[in-house]
Amino acid sequence: MDNLQYEEEGRTELSQLGEFALINRLTDGFKTQNKSTVKGVGDDCAVIGTGKKKTVVSTDTLVEGVHFDMMYTPLKHLGYKAVATSLSNIAAMNAIPRQVLVSVAVSNRFSVEALEELYAGIRICCERYDVDLVGGDTNTSLSGIIITVTSIGEVDKERITYRKGAQLHDLICVSGDLGSAYSGLLVLEREKVTYQANPNFQPDLDSYDYILERYLKPEPRIDIVKMLAEKDIVPTSMIDVSDGLASELLHICKQSDCGCEVYEEKLPIDYQTTRVCSEMSKNMLPVSNALNGGEDYELLFTISQKDYDKLKDSKEITIIGHITEKGMPAVMVTPQNTTITLVAQGWQAHEE
Amino acid sequence: MDNLQYEEEGRTELSQLGEFALINRLTDGFKTQNKSTVKGVGDDCAVIGTGKKKTVVSTDTLVEGVHFDMMYTPLKHLGYKAVATSLSNIAAMNAIPRQVLVSVAVSNRFSVEALEELYAGIRICCERYDVDLVGGDTNTSLSGIIITVTSIGEVDKERITYRKGAQLHDLICVSGDLGSAYSGLLVLEREKVTYQANPNFQPDLDSYDYILERYLKPEPRIDIVKMLAEKDIVPTSMIDVSDGLASELLHICKQSDCGCEVYEEKLPIDYQTTRVCSEMSKNMLPVSNALNGGEDYELLFTISQKDYDKLKDSKEITIIGHITEKGMPAVMVTPQNTTITLVAQGWQAHEE
Repeated sequence: MDNLQYEEEGRTELSQLGEFALINRLTDGFKTQNKSTVKGVGDDCAVIGTGKKKTVVSTDTLVEGVHFDMMYTPLKHLGYKAVATSLSNIAAMNAIPRQVLVSVAVSNRFSVEALEELYAGIRICCERYDVDLVGGDTNTSLSGIIITVTSIGEVDKERITYRKGAQLHDLICVSGDLGSAYSGLLVLEREKVTYQANPNFQPDLDSYDYILERYLKPEPRIDIVKMLAEKDIVPTSMIDVSDGLASELLHICKQSDCGCEVYEEKLPIDYQTTRVCSEMSKNMLPVSNALNGGEDYELLFTISQKDYDKLKDSKEITIIGHITEKGMPAVMVTPQNTTITLVAQGWQAHEE
Repeated sequence: MDNLQYEEEGRTELSQLGEFALINRLTDGFKTQNKSTVKGVGDDCAVIGTGKKKTVVSTDTLVEGVHFDMMYTPLKHLGYKAVATSLSNIAAMNAIPRQVLVSVAVSNRFSVEALEELYAGIRICCERYDVDLVGGDTNTSLSGIIITVTSIGEVDKERITYRKGAQLHDLICVSGDLGSAYSGLLVLEREKVTYQANPNFQPDLDSYDYILERYLKPEPRIDIVKMLAEKDIVPTSMIDVSDGLASELLHICKQSDCGCEVYEEKLPIDYQTTRVCSEMSKNMLPVSNALNGGEDYELLFTISQKDYDKLKDSKEITIIGHITEKGMPAVMVTPQNTTITLVAQGWQAHEE
């Protein structure tokens, strides 16, 4: 009963700290002591193992109403996405995923058949990426559905890629395109509002197929990890784009102790993203979705200039800028040659 | 929006299946395909790795209002217990834990200071068991606190102990005592009711210190794993007692394809457990708490008779029965020589 007192004296709201500041504060007193712990908190995955092959592990929780809206998220897609986004953390270490554990808590609003849909999506993603479901548990929740996926991968010691490691003049590369997942979410939110106003409304979503799929069914870029191995490239740093390009660039700069410069006109943006922005508002810029939208699950990485020739003709990779000196900020240069300092978006605690 | 349809046609309620039947149904279509996957779903941990040392991994979710009541669970204890109960799964494979990842989702009912209490408990447990916190995430939830702990351990290939493997005439052993955690919970529930009726009531809990600690701050029996190694014993099967002795014996019998016989008078029961039962009701039997209470996190294992001499003088281990032939039931023999067939308790889906 004494836990109630923690709520009162000198209370700091979660919303006063950003997510990363909070994690730093909570994990500050922890020290690692096992020789098999190569890397603890602070990257896309933990790295463990004493041999030449390292094991990478990551865990993430998705909460209904916070990370997804059941109104427009089919359960099969949700299962697929929960696994896919977890595997993306493995890819971000330049590793290949091998196993997942899935822990699900659901209220009795869900039937056995509903859970079967969820697991059908989990299975499709596991099969697509040659990953084995090896454990987990099923619990009841008091409200909604909460899914935690733990992914395990492997990588040769000399190929592990951390957020730190970017060097002056390295080239900044990104796979696929940016901002499309968030643009898909904007369309779904718009249709939800229309549907709530008029339940007989039949949305026509065909012309948004690409960006909707980007949001509802993202893919971890294991193909890029394999391509980098085939081309004998080890990136100097890497992260996956889950929170938006700006936030991820700041992680790389902070952990690599450097600045960076990316060029607005180089950012890979799909035409459906551009179209949605113009439909939504004259003030909505596609580049904002790319910088801050998040959930693209593309890989953002840096390579040494000597590797430029190996990647310059790749259709899947765009070089968007370069690493600058320690002490320099992370900036985007516009076509008008204006320099914009990048900032990460905040983190909101939800009202109960 | 099409997910809503899953709720309607041919709906099976979660409560119609037991937890284990549900997991079987959901994971039925999954096949393992990676050579590094030694054991998938179906034991206390997954087992992975291609070398002599194997990695064991387990994940578990605790949901506020389902697994714990904040009314009588201090956050520091909750953090400790979340890690301790996860490490118990590692012990159940005869392995030593090395790393944990902790994923927490909380609503804004909780302050930063409250989360610091939670993490203080997590840290104390990690330090006590020489385990490194290597990852996890912090999320917002719409209501309450949900904690998922993933534990990673290691064990030599020839020492891994599964639920399967018990042989005819093997001795059934259990560490510590049984039913005390559930008896502690009964006391806490009783005091809660009294407190709700009269908030000025000051509970006197001193005489229940042992059983309260058993419930609020359980310990994974890593010491037993180390003792077994020192005595050069590899159990033929093992599981931890999280759901109660009856349920765990049934898991061992099912997976080892055998029956078993345990003796009521042999079950290790603490005097505080016995006293609480007599206080609560004339009809409450301590043996019921031992069989069905759960949350003791003791180790239940079987050994070959040849290892009897190595364990017979251990104060920490009680031999409670033996394995019987395939086709025989799992039974408890009373002091009056009556035979009671053991049944596992059901699983309830919670109302939203």
